[in-house]
Amino acid sequence: MDVRDKGFKHYIRIDEAIKRIEEHLKGYSLGYEEVNLLDSLDRVNYENIFSEVDIPSVNRAAMDGYSVKADDTLGATKHNPILLKLSRDGKISKGEAKYTATGSPIPEGADALVMVEEAKKISDEEIEVYQSVPPWKNIARVGEDVKKGELLIERGKIINPQQIALLAALGYSKIKVVKKPKIGIISTGNELVEVGIKKDEDQVYDVNRYSLSSLCKKIACDVIDFGIAKDDINEIRDKVFRSLKEAQITLISGGTSVGERDLIPDVINSFQNSKFLFHGVALRPGAPAGAALIDNRIVFLLPGYPVSTMVCFDALVKPIIYKLMGAIPPKESKVKAKMLRRAATIGGLRTYVRVKLLENHGLFAEPIRTFGAGIISSMSKADGIIIVPEDKEGLEEGEEVEVTLLR
Amino acid sequence: MDVRDKGFKHYIRIDEAIKRIEEHLKGYSLGYEEVNLLDSLDRVNYENIFSEVDIPSVNRAAMDGYSVKADDTLGATKHNPILLKLSRDGKISKGEAKYTATGSPIPEGADALVMVEEAKKISDEEIEVYQSVPPWKNIARVGEDVKKGELLIERGKIINPQQIALLAALGYSKIKVVKKPKIGIISTGNELVEVGIKKDEDQVYDVNRYSLSSLCKKIACDVIDFGIAKDDINEIRDKVFRSLKEAQITLISGGTSVGERDLIPDVINSFQNSKFLFHGVALRPGAPAGAALIDNRIVFLLPGYPVSTMVCFDALVKPIIYKLMGAIPPKESKVKAKMLRRAATIGGLRTYVRVKLLENHGLFAEPIRTFGAGIISSMSKADGIIIVPEDKEGLEEGEEVEVTLLR
Repeated sequence: MDVRDKGFKHYIRIDEAIKRIEEHLKGYSLGYEEVNLLDSLDRVNYENIFSEVDIPSVNRAAMDGYSVKADDTLGATKHNPILLKLSRDGKISKGEAKYTATGSPIPEGADALVMVEEAKKISDEEIEVYQSVPPWKNIARVGEDVKKGELLIERGKIINPQQIALLAALGYSKIKVVKKPKIGIISTGNELVEVGIKKDEDQVYDVNRYSLSSLCKKIACDVIDFGIAKDDINEIRDKVFRSLKEAQITLISGGTSVGERDLIPDVINSFQNSKFLFHGVALRPGAPAGAALIDNRIVFLLPGYPVSTMVCFDALVKPIIYKLMGAIPPKESKVKAKMLRRAATIGGLRTYVRVKLLENHGLFAEPIRTFGAGIISSMSKADGIIIVPEDKEGLEEGEEVEVTLLR
Repeated sequence: MDVRDKGFKHYIRIDEAIKRIEEHLKGYSLGYEEVNLLDSLDRVNYENIFSEVDIPSVNRAAMDGYSVKADDTLGATKHNPILLKLSRDGKISKGEAKYTATGSPIPEGADALVMVEEAKKISDEEIEVYQSVPPWKNIARVGEDVKKGELLIERGKIINPQQIALLAALGYSKIKVVKKPKIGIISTGNELVEVGIKKDEDQVYDVNRYSLSSLCKKIACDVIDFGIAKDDINEIRDKVFRSLKEAQITLISGGTSVGERDLIPDVINSFQNSKFLFHGVALRPGAPAGAALIDNRIVFLLPGYPVSTMVCFDALVKPIIYKLMGAIPPKESKVKAKMLRRAATIGGLRTYVRVKLLENHGLFAEPIRTFGAGIISSMSKADGIIIVPEDKEGLEEGEEVEVTLLR
């Protein structure tokens, strides 16, 4: 086979690349499943959840104490306590009080609560009150926390422990969540070997199935692992065919560039109902990435280099998976830092600069010296990433930058 | 039963509280289990992992191209290409070149690589080179990425996708991770009802088992759910007894304050080999929290109020679980913001102020108006938390604060 000399004529910008794929997701829904409250953790909320009730549903004691009429406590102090009678019928009439535990309903007739620390039971029938309380003091009032009809959790939110707490407070035992998307993962390359096997010097362990699988798991996707394909059109085609049947999105890494063994474009074109949405993106590392539709299913072509593939996942694949799930992407964790030294980037490309963070009278970002995207340690050593936009060229020493934290 | 009037004589500071518990963890280990590489995601790395090899193990092509002797390309340009012969024996002698795909070993005799874009095969025997390359250009050299003996992943690190990629690159198929701690969870209170059941007005849904379970799951613990206990010493004692047999840490919420029905201290004291490490912490919300040892197992007493319990988990329980796992706590995500209005806090207590974040020519933190810790919505509506240290009183309008993001 001859060396192909095609290269990429055009590198599409990331935003445009995402837009082209998103157009094909319009109207598509993964559907929902109903899960137990606790299993909704980290899943995508399927529909807006509105409160059907007020919380509290009745006025409740916010502390342990005595329910009273506020007026009855006027002028009470440690030295001039006011005497109140314990209510016999459960209702509070003028001059009466009733012990009410935290969370219990405030009895009829009461409009304030004296904390247990500010009162003392002096007989079976009477208490002394040492503090004056204004109306509604120490009472959690109806609807104060959550109002009936209020939007509790927006559709698309990725459910966190705080929201699970809120839903529990409202009595929800089941939640509708978006079904997990299925992501088919294929690695290609004659040089690739499965981990755990002794390899020859001219072989390398397959990294991309592991990095892509764990990145997918992190955002609650189901991964279908199709293993490693040799650089053989039929072998790759067979795995793609199987993935298309099961998965909404297929990720193929390797063989997508312009080298001798880059067969993936041929594989894509061998399917009847296929078309490329783009091939070659203005991203560094990660330029050889592409995306195609086969029978309206999305196939991503990702570079063979592990770091490029991880960057492509972050820049291209993750936004599409969130869109597919109808999820509101969670805010990235970012910190501001100053560049410890300059980093060259190329204008017109979105560049992912991996940095270490150092604290030295302020936070500094040190770009990790790398040669090429093959440097897998550059990713695991990095504390974060600076995403340099297309219209910017280079980062200067001392420049303030925003670092997206890796975890 | 009479109203007890004991209150808390002393509120211990959080740091001291944690120290007292940690003393009892010295020398304790959860042990390890060996899991498949992919299953190590989010688990705690059990031992330092050192590289047994160099990566790359041989000099490799960092691009698709032609392996050459750098000297042979001196002076090559687009207009004055240099002609090289394709090697027949796989070795590179003077004046020779050999196509080498990305990642493949550089053949003997070569010391540089010309990118495929900068050369052209003009016959079966010859190529033209259009660019001069310095020695080692486009070659990933032995050990450049990872050196033999280098520390790859520190023990205690919580394994992320980048580290899984690194371990895959080194061929690891199994990883030793710390065994998951088992956390027993018990809610107490006559007023509590299980979610999903219709409740009376004087009842409330149990929130704490759900919030605590999901917070524990978030940090890869196994949760054992012992359900709700009525305010009955024997019923609570029975659940604690069962939890002590199975779990390393038991979390009991409710009944830990100074009200009529606060039975947990009595339950703790009813065990033979038990002692309180502290009861009452300088934390707001969350002051009634405590911790005890029963047969050297840790039992946390957490407040009944859902928000207090979540704050106690964050301030007290989580650091202890990390310590038990031997984990390096992951960095919290923090952002700097300005206070939109003042928030009162009490000196001497560590205060968790829940805030919403608003972007308006800079980031602003708006404290969520709350009355008491019962306001569960204050947690789910919050974007983050400001932790105000004990030696500080109040946050002023316009003051710069650090907000720990909730996700």
